[in-house]
Amino acid sequence: MEIEAAKMLGAGLATIGVAGAGIGIGMLFGQFVGAGIRNPAAAKTQTGNLFVGMALSEATAIFALGIAMLILFG
Amino acid sequence: MEIEAAKMLGAGLATIGVAGAGIGIGMLFGQFVGAGIRNPAAAKTQTGNLFVGMALSEATAIFALGIAMLILFG
Amino acid sequence: MEIEAAKMLGAGLATIGVAGAGIGIGMLFGQFVGAGIRNPAAAKTQTGNLFVGMALSEATAIFALGIAMLILFG
Amino acid sequence: MEIEAAKMLGAGLATIGVAGAGIGIGMLFGQFVGAGIRNPAAAKTQTGNLFVGMALSEATAIFALGIAMLILFG
Amino acid sequence: MEIEAAKMLGAGLATIGVAGAGIGIGMLFGQFVGAGIRNPAAAKTQTGNLFVGMALSEATAIFALGIAMLILFG
Repeated sequence: MEIEAAKMLGAGLATIGVAGAGIGIGMLFGQFVGAGIRNPAAAKTQTGNLFVGMALSEATAIFALGIAMLILFG
Repeated sequence: MEIEAAKMLGAGLATIGVAGAGIGIGMLFGQFVGAGIRNPAAAKTQTGNLFVGMALSEATAIFALGIAMLILFG
Repeated sequence: MEIEAAKMLGAGLATIGVAGAGIGIGMLFGQFVGAGIRNPAAAKTQTGNLFVGMALSEATAIFALGIAMLILFG
Repeated sequence: MEIEAAKMLGAGLATIGVAGAGIGIGMLFGQFVGAGIRNPAAAKTQTGNLFVGMALSEATAIFALGIAMLILFG
Repeated sequence: MEIEAAKMLGAGLATIGVAGAGIGIGMLFGQFVGAGIRNPAAAKTQTGNLFVGMALSEATAIFALGIAMLILFG
């Protein structure tokens, strides 16, 4: 296999890893809005944690994206 | 393997990553409508968070789509 | 590998991505009917959100389908 | 790889995508029967939504099946 | 297959592993904010455990990233 062909396959494989952040962020915001609707007054107290968690979960998608780019153009 | 053949396989692999957003958005809206039916008056307070979360989860599908396109036509 | 053979494999791989929407839509409608049975009068208030969420989750299946078609016939 | 061999593998890969609908429909009916046992009188009000959700989730399995057929016989 | 080509494929495969941390962190923070909104006064008592859990889950993404880097440049 030539190196150029392997880059296409490797980048494609690495990109599968973004799926996890898609699931995780959906779960996180789902729990937040679900509980926030039951007790709207208290939802604000957890907004900071919501966005910290989102950033940490999204980071895994960025990891996958970064490696895909690195394989493709590195 | 020729580079053209590898592009087809790589784009196919990258596309698997859209699955995560499909799951995440379903969970997020599921929690929203589930809680919104129990307490309809408060559902409006979380609509903003619903769409922020949706956009962030959908973004992972766009990442996967973007890499697939990049591999296919890049 | 010939390009025609790679198209078959690539389209097959891309199609795996539809799985996410199948899970997500099932969860979304599951939460809706589950809460709707507990509080049938309020279910109507969330029908709009139900179908917005369904469309956004289904969109990820359409992404996967589109890329599969693009690989197969593009 | 010959094109005939690639068709067999590609159709097999595409079929993995039906897994999502299997999970999603199971969750959907699970939520329905779970809530329906708690409040049997109200279960009838959500039967329509149950079958709309089932059809939309099942559609993703049909997508996977269609692509598998297209790869195999297209 | 040449060693250079195998490096691209290996790094791509390793990167799929980041998906787990994306899901896990989303679940963890989701449970935290969900329960924290129901009982905001007690949420602070669990912040330490939240970040220990996050670090341990994120570590798996770092492992995957480290091995991918090691394969690519090692």
